[in-house]
Amino acid sequence: MKKYVIGVDLGGTKITTAISDLAGKIIEKTTLATGAHLGEEVVMERIFESISMVLEASKIAEEEVRAIGIGSPGPLDAEKGTIITTPNLPFKNYNVAKPIERKFGITTYLDNDANAAALGEYAFGAGKGTKNLLYITVSTGVGGGAVLNGRPYRGSTSNALEVGHMTIEPFSPHRCNCGNYGDLESLSSGTAIAKRAKEAVEAGKETILKDAQTITSYEVHQAYLEGDAVAMEILDKAFAYMGIGVANLIVNFDPEVIVIGGGVSKIGDLFFAKVKESARTRCFDFMFDAVKIVPAELGQDAGVIGAIALALVESEEK
Amino acid sequence: MKKYVIGVDLGGTKITTAISDLAGKIIEKTTLATGAHLGEEVVMERIFESISMVLEASKIAEEEVRAIGIGSPGPLDAEKGTIITTPNLPFKNYNVAKPIERKFGITTYLDNDANAAALGEYAFGAGKGTKNLLYITVSTGVGGGAVLNGRPYRGSTSNALEVGHMTIEPFSPHRCNCGNYGDLESLSSGTAIAKRAKEAVEAGKETILKDAQTITSYEVHQAYLEGDAVAMEILDKAFAYMGIGVANLIVNFDPEVIVIGGGVSKIGDLFFAKVKESARTRCFDFMFDAVKIVPAELGQDAGVIGAIALALVESEEK
Repeated sequence: MKKYVIGVDLGGTKITTAISDLAGKIIEKTTLATGAHLGEEVVMERIFESISMVLEASKIAEEEVRAIGIGSPGPLDAEKGTIITTPNLPFKNYNVAKPIERKFGITTYLDNDANAAALGEYAFGAGKGTKNLLYITVSTGVGGGAVLNGRPYRGSTSNALEVGHMTIEPFSPHRCNCGNYGDLESLSSGTAIAKRAKEAVEAGKETILKDAQTITSYEVHQAYLEGDAVAMEILDKAFAYMGIGVANLIVNFDPEVIVIGGGVSKIGDLFFAKVKESARTRCFDFMFDAVKIVPAELGQDAGVIGAIALALVESEEK
Repeated sequence: MKKYVIGVDLGGTKITTAISDLAGKIIEKTTLATGAHLGEEVVMERIFESISMVLEASKIAEEEVRAIGIGSPGPLDAEKGTIITTPNLPFKNYNVAKPIERKFGITTYLDNDANAAALGEYAFGAGKGTKNLLYITVSTGVGGGAVLNGRPYRGSTSNALEVGHMTIEPFSPHRCNCGNYGDLESLSSGTAIAKRAKEAVEAGKETILKDAQTITSYEVHQAYLEGDAVAMEILDKAFAYMGIGVANLIVNFDPEVIVIGGGVSKIGDLFFAKVKESARTRCFDFMFDAVKIVPAELGQDAGVIGAIALALVESEEK
C-alpha cells in the first residue's frame, strides 16, 4: 500500500520539495537553490537531490510513494510532462517528468503553478468539498487554474484559464505584455496599478505618491489607506475591472467557488468588497449568489502543497 | 443488451421525438404540437404520447432502450431533471424526467437545448473525435454549451456557458435584456444587429434599409450584400465583438473546437471570416492556431439529435 506522495515546487530561484501522507500532511520538507543560470542538467540534478533528501529524512522507501507532482511556471505540456519555455528556468522543450520517473520508479505529473495552486485549494484549502473551483492569482500578472467536475481542467494545449488575457475593454489605451489592449491583466494586475500611479504622478496629479519610476501597487495601497484620492481612484477602477473579469468567469464556468490569491489580493477586505460589488452588477443575481468568492487559504507553502495535491488527485484517477 | 436510445426535443411550439440506434441513426421520428397553453399535464401527456409513438412504430420494446434524453429551454436543473421556468413552456419547478422514468422504466436525462446541441455536435457533428468542445448559438440571443474532458460541463447551477452575458465593453450604451450593458448578446446577437439598423434608419443615415420597426438581421445582411455602407458597418462591428467573445472563450477554455450555430451564423463565410479575424488579434497566436472555429454541422434535426446524444453520453458514463 502506497501511503505517501511527493510535491516539488519548481521556481526560478528555489526548489521546495516535500513528502506528505495521503491527507496532505507534510512529513519532511527541503528547499534548495534552483541554480537556473547553471543550465538544465544542474537544475534537474537538484530536483533529484531534493527528492532524495525528503525520502531519506523521512525514512520512506520509493516503493511506498504513490506519485510525484511538480508545479512549474509555464507554458508547459502537462500531458507529456514537458516544460516548453519559461523566463526564469533554463528548460526548453524539456521533459522533466520522465527522468524523475526513471530515477525513482515513481509516476510523476507536471502542471503549471496556477493549476497546482487550484488543486491545492481544492484538496486542502478554500475549495475543500467542492466540485467546480476556479483559482485566480492577481500579482504582477493575472493567471488562473480550474478544477471542473472534480478533475483538473487544462484545455487542449494545457493553457486554459489564461484569465488575465480575457478582453474586457477593447478600446482601452492600456496595452498588455501579450500585445492585446484592455485585457484583465492590463487593467487590474499589480503591474497595471503601479503603471496608473506612475502616469498620475508624471501628469502632476495631486497625490502623496512620489517617485514615478519605482512606485509599486503596495505603495498605492498605503496611499489609499491614508485617504489619497488619486490612489483611491486607481484601486477602485482596478478592482472594478477585476470584478468584471470575475463576472465573466461566473457566466462562463458557473463555479461553486472562486478562490483568489496573489499579492494584490492580500490587500484583503477592500479588494474583495470592491471586486464583489462590481461582479454582482455584471451577472445574473442567482448565479452570483450561488458562487463563493474567497481568499486563498494556503499560505507560504501553497506552491508545494499544490504540487502534493497534483500528485494525489492525478494518481487517484488512475 | 440495450441497443437504442430516445431523444425528445421539447420546444415551445412542438415536441420532436426520435428513437435511434447507439450510432445515433434515427429509426423512427414523430412531431406533435406542444400545446403549451393547455398546461403542464397536457404537455407531459404529449411527451408520453410521442415516446409511445416511436416505440410502437419501431416495434422496439422499453427493455431494449438504454436511456431517454430531453433537450428543453432553460433555466433548468439538469441533475434533478427539473425545469425551473421558461417563457414558452408551462412548467414551473416541474420535474419532467421522473414521470417519464416511472411510466416507461427507462433512465431519463434532462438538459438545456444549448448543452444538448453541444453534445450533438460532439457525438455526431463538427466536434466528433474531440475532447474539449464549445458550442455557441447566435440568433435572437447568444447562448452556449460545453463538453470538457469528454463530458458535458454544466457548472454548479446548470448555467455554465451563458456566454451571451459575458461583458466585453463595460461602458457601452447598449443594454441587454438581462440588465447588463455591453455584454456579448447586447452587441452581436440578431436582436442587437436589428436594433443598430433601426437606430441608423431613425437617425436618417443614408441606407437602403427601411421600415425601422420591422428590420431583422436577415435584412441587414441582404443590404450588406448589396453594398450598403450602413449595413456593412453594423455587421462588421457585431462580428468583431463576437470575435472578442470567441477570443475570451479561447483563453479561458483552451478548447479544441468552437462550433457556432444559430441564425446569425448562417450568414456563413462572411460571419466566420470576420469573427476569426477579430478573435486572432485578441488572444495568443499559438492558442488561436490550436482551435478550430467551425459552423454547426447538424441541420434541421439538431435538437432531437442533441437529445439523443445526451441520452447516449450520459448513459455511457454510468
